[in-house]
Amino acid sequence: MSPNFTTLAEFSSLLADLPAPDASAIEAAHARDRQLTKPPGALGRLEELALWYCGWRGDARARIKHPQVIVFAGNHGVTAQGISAFPAEVTAQMVANFQSGGAAVNQLAGIVGARMDVHALALDTPTQDMTKGPAMSEAEVASALKTGWDAVNVEADLLVVGEMGIGNTTSAAAIALALFGGDAAGWIGQGTGLAPEAMTHKAEVVAHAVAANPGAQDSGLEALRCLGGRELAAMAGAILRARVLSIPLILDGFICTAAAACLELAGPGALDHAVAGHVSAEPGHAKLLAQLGKEPILSLGMRLGEGSGGTLAIGILQGALACHSGMASFAEAGVSTG
Amino acid sequence: MSPNFTTLAEFSSLLADLPAPDASAIEAAHARDRQLTKPPGALGRLEELALWYCGWRGDARARIKHPQVIVFAGNHGVTAQGISAFPAEVTAQMVANFQSGGAAVNQLAGIVGARMDVHALALDTPTQDMTKGPAMSEAEVASALKTGWDAVNVEADLLVVGEMGIGNTTSAAAIALALFGGDAAGWIGQGTGLAPEAMTHKAEVVAHAVAANPGAQDSGLEALRCLGGRELAAMAGAILRARVLSIPLILDGFICTAAAACLELAGPGALDHAVAGHVSAEPGHAKLLAQLGKEPILSLGMRLGEGSGGTLAIGILQGALACHSGMASFAEAGVSTG
Repeated sequence: MSPNFTTLAEFSSLLADLPAPDASAIEAAHARDRQLTKPPGALGRLEELALWYCGWRGDARARIKHPQVIVFAGNHGVTAQGISAFPAEVTAQMVANFQSGGAAVNQLAGIVGARMDVHALALDTPTQDMTKGPAMSEAEVASALKTGWDAVNVEADLLVVGEMGIGNTTSAAAIALALFGGDAAGWIGQGTGLAPEAMTHKAEVVAHAVAANPGAQDSGLEALRCLGGRELAAMAGAILRARVLSIPLILDGFICTAAAACLELAGPGALDHAVAGHVSAEPGHAKLLAQLGKEPILSLGMRLGEGSGGTLAIGILQGALACHSGMASFAEAGVSTG
Repeated sequence: MSPNFTTLAEFSSLLADLPAPDASAIEAAHARDRQLTKPPGALGRLEELALWYCGWRGDARARIKHPQVIVFAGNHGVTAQGISAFPAEVTAQMVANFQSGGAAVNQLAGIVGARMDVHALALDTPTQDMTKGPAMSEAEVASALKTGWDAVNVEADLLVVGEMGIGNTTSAAAIALALFGGDAAGWIGQGTGLAPEAMTHKAEVVAHAVAANPGAQDSGLEALRCLGGRELAAMAGAILRARVLSIPLILDGFICTAAAACLELAGPGALDHAVAGHVSAEPGHAKLLAQLGKEPILSLGMRLGEGSGGTLAIGILQGALACHSGMASFAEAGVSTG
């Protein structure tokens, strides 16, 4: 059953046979919710999140005890086209910063008590320039998927995947354009801080990349291979592993969501174990979430990547489950039910 | 300088001479933000919240260590008009639930590590029915303000105030109508779960209450006395005390915001130390926040009161300050600045 990780066909067959949530746990969680000391519905989205989480954990009174945040890093050959405000060496510098605890996601993981892991994927070997053909070979993308697959802590009860990779908003925009169509300009943003006048060039690069990889429009996994990057493929591998392990997942920003979208296109329903942690300021993100039918938990204008928005949202989920599983019932508290 | 708490004039004079944030701390915090290992602005609203918080704490590298949540409870004579889905005895029952740790806000306070206090204000003596005249005498409202004032932990570095009081969305709607005008129907909602057909009656009760208390339209503190309740006045007293102590504050839902609005009308700028933790599903809340120029941090369809939305938002502020004060600078991390 476990994929051998050398061909995309292995992942396709996995995507065709994914586990579902536990319907009886959802039913029991719903029954519990109706007894809690609050008017029905008064916790709003927290109630829906608690039921969703309980279903995936198969536990009507689940709590979040072992969240994991994984940051994957990769380099992109398309940076040769001049589409980022930062040089490619920043990817490796930021990996060192994650490892020494100095980045934003380190602080946010600390606040919510999450374990944090960092995986740098062949930073000295950028992907090929996707404007000239596929970014990765099948062996390369399968290897990156395997890195993500293996990075998931099997004891985790909630997962956030994030990324670092100079140039990867361009990659994400190309995936979005290939999978969902529209204009290239509608899927791009300023990334880490591109000047407005460089945006037209970025849109042209995205359009060229999609034109150079016609197979990417027909298949989520081909889009990941041809237009993605190693960190995007690793995120997809971790998201898929989480599903196989019934570990609920929080999506981060535009790049994470683009990687996730490749799975959804390859296997409809593949993201049922995922919620959107936030909607970022990168303009394509809201459109991508709408395509996937995901309502973001937070909307705070963040656009950092590295799992930061998803990690901040862990606290909201922890609150939802603490209420659901910790509150007294009307009977326990001796409260009249109106 | 401390008010003697027997007249509203004491509070009015306090409101005329409130402390400002520390401009030099804000400037130093801003300078620090520009050096952190992220593109400028990439943490979105978290950056703005960190600077605001640092200004009020007078510390360019502040952190949140001692958040406090206070829940005030009171009973309302206007429940005689049949405007709530729950009987008035639920207020006392829920106070017991807060004290034994069984309510939603207890669980949320636990997640963010906040101290929680509960103050029941004369539950056996409901306010007067505001449709027939002022809800409270000057001595009563001053006493409730003093309860709130005294409830603030002087060592706290962040405050959330919440409430419990059957009938108090009616009270909040009456305050909003008196202070900001419009139609009574535009300020009401279902509260704890009023049936749609009872909403018209609730709007009539709100309109009658405002008509019966013409002085409430001219003064925020008179609105609090005539249309508020003891728990609303106590929240106002705690909000004012937090300002005097330069403790930043997170507003909760509709009722908390209505109490806070009385202070803002009585002393413009009185809520500069406050942010809106969330926007609730109670329809008047978004309108009230817009009147006060406050952008909510969360929007999760919550409508429970008891400080729940504000307490959930503590985690977002903790994340903002952890990033601001814990991240490495570009120089410290050896990251290129583009």
